Amino acid sequence: MEDLRFKDMDLRYLSNSTRVHELVPAYQSFVQEHLYPLEQEAVYGSFKATLPKLHALRGLAKEKGLFAPHLSEKEGGLGLSLVEFAFVSEVLGMSPLGHFVFNCQAPDIGNMELMHQFASKELKETYLKPLQEGNIRSCFAMTEPQNPGSNPVHLSTTAVRDGEEYVINGHKWFTTAADGANFTIVMALTDPENPNPYLRASMILVPLDNPGYQLLRNIPIMGDVGEDYMSHGEVKFTDCRVPISNLIGKEGAGFALAQERLGPGRIHHCMRWIGICERAIDLMCKRALARNLDPGRNLASQQTIQNWIAEAVASVKAARLMVLQTAEKIEQEGAKAAKIDISTIKFYVSDILMKTLDRAIQVHGALGVTDDTILSFWYRHERGARIYDGPDEVHKSVLARQILKKYTSHE
Amino acid sequence: MEDLRFKDMDLRYLSNSTRVHELVPAYQSFVQEHLYPLEQEAVYGSFKATLPKLHALRGLAKEKGLFAPHLSEKEGGLGLSLVEFAFVSEVLGMSPLGHFVFNCQAPDIGNMELMHQFASKELKETYLKPLQEGNIRSCFAMTEPQNPGSNPVHLSTTAVRDGEEYVINGHKWFTTAADGANFTIVMALTDPENPNPYLRASMILVPLDNPGYQLLRNIPIMGDVGEDYMSHGEVKFTDCRVPISNLIGKEGAGFALAQERLGPGRIHHCMRWIGICERAIDLMCKRALARNLDPGRNLASQQTIQNWIAEAVASVKAARLMVLQTAEKIEQEGAKAAKIDISTIKFYVSDILMKTLDRAIQVHGALGVTDDTILSFWYRHERGARIYDGPDEVHKSVLARQILKKYTSHE
Amino acid sequence: MEDLRFKDMDLRYLSNSTRVHELVPAYQSFVQEHLYPLEQEAVYGSFKATLPKLHALRGLAKEKGLFAPHLSEKEGGLGLSLVEFAFVSEVLGMSPLGHFVFNCQAPDIGNMELMHQFASKELKETYLKPLQEGNIRSCFAMTEPQNPGSNPVHLSTTAVRDGEEYVINGHKWFTTAADGANFTIVMALTDPENPNPYLRASMILVPLDNPGYQLLRNIPIMGDVGEDYMSHGEVKFTDCRVPISNLIGKEGAGFALAQERLGPGRIHHCMRWIGICERAIDLMCKRALARNLDPGRNLASQQTIQNWIAEAVASVKAARLMVLQTAEKIEQEGAKAAKIDISTIKFYVSDILMKTLDRAIQVHGALGVTDDTILSFWYRHERGARIYDGPDEVHKSVLARQILKKYTSHE
Amino acid sequence: MEDLRFKDMDLRYLSNSTRVHELVPAYQSFVQEHLYPLEQEAVYGSFKATLPKLHALRGLAKEKGLFAPHLSEKEGGLGLSLVEFAFVSEVLGMSPLGHFVFNCQAPDIGNMELMHQFASKELKETYLKPLQEGNIRSCFAMTEPQNPGSNPVHLSTTAVRDGEEYVINGHKWFTTAADGANFTIVMALTDPENPNPYLRASMILVPLDNPGYQLLRNIPIMGDVGEDYMSHGEVKFTDCRVPISNLIGKEGAGFALAQERLGPGRIHHCMRWIGICERAIDLMCKRALARNLDPGRNLASQQTIQNWIAEAVASVKAARLMVLQTAEKIEQEGAKAAKIDISTIKFYVSDILMKTLDRAIQVHGALGVTDDTILSFWYRHERGARIYDGPDEVHKSVLARQILKKYTSHE
Repeated sequence: MEDLRFKDMDLRYLSNSTRVHELVPAYQSFVQEHLYPLEQEAVYGSFKATLPKLHALRGLAKEKGLFAPHLSEKEGGLGLSLVEFAFVSEVLGMSPLGHFVFNCQAPDIGNMELMHQFASKELKETYLKPLQEGNIRSCFAMTEPQNPGSNPVHLSTTAVRDGEEYVINGHKWFTTAADGANFTIVMALTDPENPNPYLRASMILVPLDNPGYQLLRNIPIMGDVGEDYMSHGEVKFTDCRVPISNLIGKEGAGFALAQERLGPGRIHHCMRWIGICERAIDLMCKRALARNLDPGRNLASQQTIQNWIAEAVASVKAARLMVLQTAEKIEQEGAKAAKIDISTIKFYVSDILMKTLDRAIQVHGALGVTDDTILSFWYRHERGARIYDGPDEVHKSVLARQILKKYTSHE
Repeated sequence: MEDLRFKDMDLRYLSNSTRVHELVPAYQSFVQEHLYPLEQEAVYGSFKATLPKLHALRGLAKEKGLFAPHLSEKEGGLGLSLVEFAFVSEVLGMSPLGHFVFNCQAPDIGNMELMHQFASKELKETYLKPLQEGNIRSCFAMTEPQNPGSNPVHLSTTAVRDGEEYVINGHKWFTTAADGANFTIVMALTDPENPNPYLRASMILVPLDNPGYQLLRNIPIMGDVGEDYMSHGEVKFTDCRVPISNLIGKEGAGFALAQERLGPGRIHHCMRWIGICERAIDLMCKRALARNLDPGRNLASQQTIQNWIAEAVASVKAARLMVLQTAEKIEQEGAKAAKIDISTIKFYVSDILMKTLDRAIQVHGALGVTDDTILSFWYRHERGARIYDGPDEVHKSVLARQILKKYTSHE
Repeated sequence: MEDLRFKDMDLRYLSNSTRVHELVPAYQSFVQEHLYPLEQEAVYGSFKATLPKLHALRGLAKEKGLFAPHLSEKEGGLGLSLVEFAFVSEVLGMSPLGHFVFNCQAPDIGNMELMHQFASKELKETYLKPLQEGNIRSCFAMTEPQNPGSNPVHLSTTAVRDGEEYVINGHKWFTTAADGANFTIVMALTDPENPNPYLRASMILVPLDNPGYQLLRNIPIMGDVGEDYMSHGEVKFTDCRVPISNLIGKEGAGFALAQERLGPGRIHHCMRWIGICERAIDLMCKRALARNLDPGRNLASQQTIQNWIAEAVASVKAARLMVLQTAEKIEQEGAKAAKIDISTIKFYVSDILMKTLDRAIQVHGALGVTDDTILSFWYRHERGARIYDGPDEVHKSVLARQILKKYTSHE
Repeated sequence: MEDLRFKDMDLRYLSNSTRVHELVPAYQSFVQEHLYPLEQEAVYGSFKATLPKLHALRGLAKEKGLFAPHLSEKEGGLGLSLVEFAFVSEVLGMSPLGHFVFNCQAPDIGNMELMHQFASKELKETYLKPLQEGNIRSCFAMTEPQNPGSNPVHLSTTAVRDGEEYVINGHKWFTTAADGANFTIVMALTDPENPNPYLRASMILVPLDNPGYQLLRNIPIMGDVGEDYMSHGEVKFTDCRVPISNLIGKEGAGFALAQERLGPGRIHHCMRWIGICERAIDLMCKRALARNLDPGRNLASQQTIQNWIAEAVASVKAARLMVLQTAEKIEQEGAKAAKIDISTIKFYVSDILMKTLDRAIQVHGALGVTDDTILSFWYRHERGARIYDGPDEVHKSVLARQILKKYTSHE
């Protein structure tokens, strides 16, 4: 078992939840003991072939009372608040397998949150329940290749009502984990002429055995076509018919729901990124100590390496505080009130993430670019962090315009 | 009266002290209403000539019950905790006159803290009391031109006991505010041969009318020789005799006291820097909105400017959280336990400070390099922030080595 | 005499002009021997009081055949090409007194170039000749406080013809060296309604003893109000009458001339900035070697310091090559053909300049923020380099749009 | 055929070789017309399966008289000088297939240079000739997993003489293109006890059908195990016997030869990196123009994108000049004289390379992280550029110490 020696979190100053204080070390031991050793096999080998082991670990997680931390106790989870879950998410982020094993991985967790609030009783029974139990998987089809993801108003996929059915046509990509999923929630225009562009789209659940649905390919991302959960699909809907009862929330509420979904989702992501940074720092420190430049003089003695460690640790510490504060605000006032806070953590943390990974790789030298460490996986697959959910540049403008508005609104 | 429109602080998530919630707006109004209008005169004109006005404002501060927020109520202050004072320090930082008017300016505040804990009753009566009341000023003579400030072990100034007196000889510089001060606390070697270098020095109070003391010059700092409180002295001690009862704390305790002094001092500085950033962002926003590139198209519409505003706001927000957490740790466990946290905020915030100022200047165009705004003052005088109290690079190494030690100590 | 030990220029690969190979060391010796020792006095003391010494050095420069390198031999200069002069400008840039002593300082050099090409014989005789001989000084009034300098189309100053005179009204600032100058060239609208905004303005010579001209103030720049040549004026023209024969070039040619003037001017500036960088690197190296952290361990042994030196040296080397290539292009094809090259060096070199100065200061520690080295002067006064002649951000857009145009023009 | 519209090279100011002026467009057309269309297949599909097409293109290259530009005419090449070849290398770098098709790919080109100068007649006949003709491939085994690549003195592989044979034992990795190669040149200790560590190693040619040689694996690099030429091997030598006549150069000359090899190799790499940057800028511009944010408003209109394009173009331009100057110095004075220039371009250009790729990806949004463009390949596989041949940090120290030495050597 690998020994996690680095922990810069001063938990007592970060939370006074006793659950957090108990759970963080519990998850941490689990991740180190059970997930680190599986990474080479599951992440660089075949994820699909490793599924039996991962499902066995889900069983262990249930036994230990750690499964599905985000769900209510009634639903088989731990009933954690968003802020409490944030701490767990950080720890799980330290392995690419963390969220999956505890069934709180994106996009399923977002779909669970959404369906919990807005799906019909029937959809909940048929789809949400097995999803929460970890027996099926789902995906979320929103981004389209021909439209900029930064502005969700630009959509081409349509869902036209025909009697008691919606007929869906459209082309989506970056439908994460489509391969092997049982259903997707698709964002489609139901009222394309509505003068208010934010009322044009709806979210509709589509079971993936539907003949009108097609997984065109797993998109090769940074050299990795992926499979099963670890993949991003390009999918097509061709006269794809589903009952209108598959609507999630109200017709026209697509954007509002997407927004709703985004807030907590950003917290999950950002804390996961911070977990990645922690692991990267951990690996960086170990490598710096282990690698000798000359007999008796290791990399850790080099000031440049020390600068990098210090800058990484400091920025991660600051970032964590900002994400936690944002989580608290969402919890207390809702995602809408925290809109610019949510934009802020998006661009702030993703930048720190990529810088930290880059430096961890540099410290590893030639080893850093190989798949012999987990850094290469993140360097490639988290490069998207600065792009998805709107590129950082868009979020910066959102924040700045909001600040500037405070001035002009008084004039 | 200038209207402060920018405030990115979400006070309710930062503090649950009702005093903080009341005091922050009170100080803010005071600073905007009374200090902003005096800046040109006091900062770019003659500080000395403005002293009567500044002392009148001290009177007003007393009337409003805002004077000396860091002192206990018994001593005429507000009895704020370190964390509570941090919020006040941020607001006061928004003007270069802020801390002075409320008598909590460095180095006097540090001397007050030190003497409060460690000075004899007589010294307290004679020096501390009028200092706390704002009737006299003091300075602190530690840094030496021939020795690197980054390592306080390297000192040349000596204090040799001769009967009931110390005879001090040495050369100091960056003795802030020596010009016009009534006394200094000087750091001098009293046991230069002690095998433990941290036990070699002591702190001794020297009244500045002492014939063995000489103010060689106010050091011209970035084009500004300064005067009175707004100056940095180069001073000399030549067979300077003071009674041994002028010792602060115990003989040999100099480094321990300096360390003690440094912790809260760093909080004051860092929050002040954050206040400067807030003012810079405020000026940046106003200028961006006011300056037209072409009719109907202002600077604020430019994406680069928006990026800068967003990055400044985000980094200030993260920095504030980190400083506040550090203040809390010092409060609860003492400066020693928070040693690396204190190193961390030092380099982290000073970097943000200089970047923010630099960009605020760039947004102002030619105006930015003139003394027609307050930015030029800070750009020049806060450049030292990345140097004094140990250059950032030293603090990064301190932090990194501490992190690395966690690994090796188990081996 | 200070010994310049650093020189990263590999002259044989940079130029095959034997004049360059002879002149560079000659100027270098002069600058080190005669100018470095005068800097404290002239730059931080009183420039005006130092004028006699500076004029004596001009005499020496003439004796040595080094005076006015940019002028033709007939005019008392060395007849250097733009590229050859670039090398000299770099060396002169190593001292803030360099260009002045050799009478090739901005804005006079630009005025000389302009008048040489476009002034009437009378103006040449009366103004250009004594200017070239170093007996009088001039200035250039273009930037206006109320209009963004980034777009010269936005001007408010007008010159209305009234019989044989122009009547000039307007408000200018950043009129460099107005204090003590004998004449200015002013940019004013002569045809404000011309549909082509680039044909609206003209350049007119105004002797400064004109009653319609007023020097409102020397603008305090970064703490420094300056005097004489070392100042930037805010000036006013109130019904200021000059004969129409004071026109430089044709009426309406103001912008074209300004553009013409800008190209070589940018070369002079950029090479001067590179000279500043060289001096900064020189000081940085010397300080790093001289300053001990502990006995036997100097700053130069620190990897961070080494990184800074290496990055500074590398970027200066790259920048120099780019500026020289641009000079060559201007020489061969004119400033217009080299428009985007000129934009490129502006933002590229000014960024390197400020980074190099910043790091040189950091290496000097507390000494770096004092006026005991020349770094503080440049840190403050060259901050404008990223702003004047159009802020860097504007030049980046110019370059990018030009590149992008190559794509769209084919479509 | 794709149309390369971007070209920021001003060839007439860069070279007065008419061959360069003729060859650059010829290679450029070839690369665009024949290589761009093959990239998806060869780079993201199966390189091995594409070999027949690539070999056909080699035939075409021969027909057009463009094959093997680095070889003398007698050897079937173009007889280009190092500087002339640099221009060609830039153009070839625009496709990952460029150097391969023209048979000037690393490590073969380095082996050709080495063997041309130092191999025996027999080795030349048997190995060099078919290598030059493109009929076989080779590799170079130097880096060892257990020793830092930054210091070639640290080697463990040994070659012990046993009669007329060397017996080689050792473990190497990052043996580029070992898969499918016919022979390797291996760096091994032949005199491990020599007091001068630079005389301990030798270079020995090993045919890869040798039973003592084993290709352990193609190392998975950033998600890509690769195959054939596009791979990096981990190899083992176990009592691997070769005749002593397989020695390249003299015994003990290993380091000297490695150094010799490195100089021109660095030029090839750096110009290739610049070619990659050009392609990235080209793709960035095209994407920025093609992608609409809203109808009528494309990405290219965004100032941030413009900044990125401008910064990329400027830095590439500066970098190219610096590499060309270094090539000229190597040509005239040899690699040893240009040692620090060679270190300088290594860290300077690799940094620009990675920044440019990163920004090109960001401009592409989600598309940027897919393998639908060639950017992803480079982002992953060129990350090593900042590591191999010694990490950038080492080269910075080399440069800085060399500069600092100029000062201390006079003292």
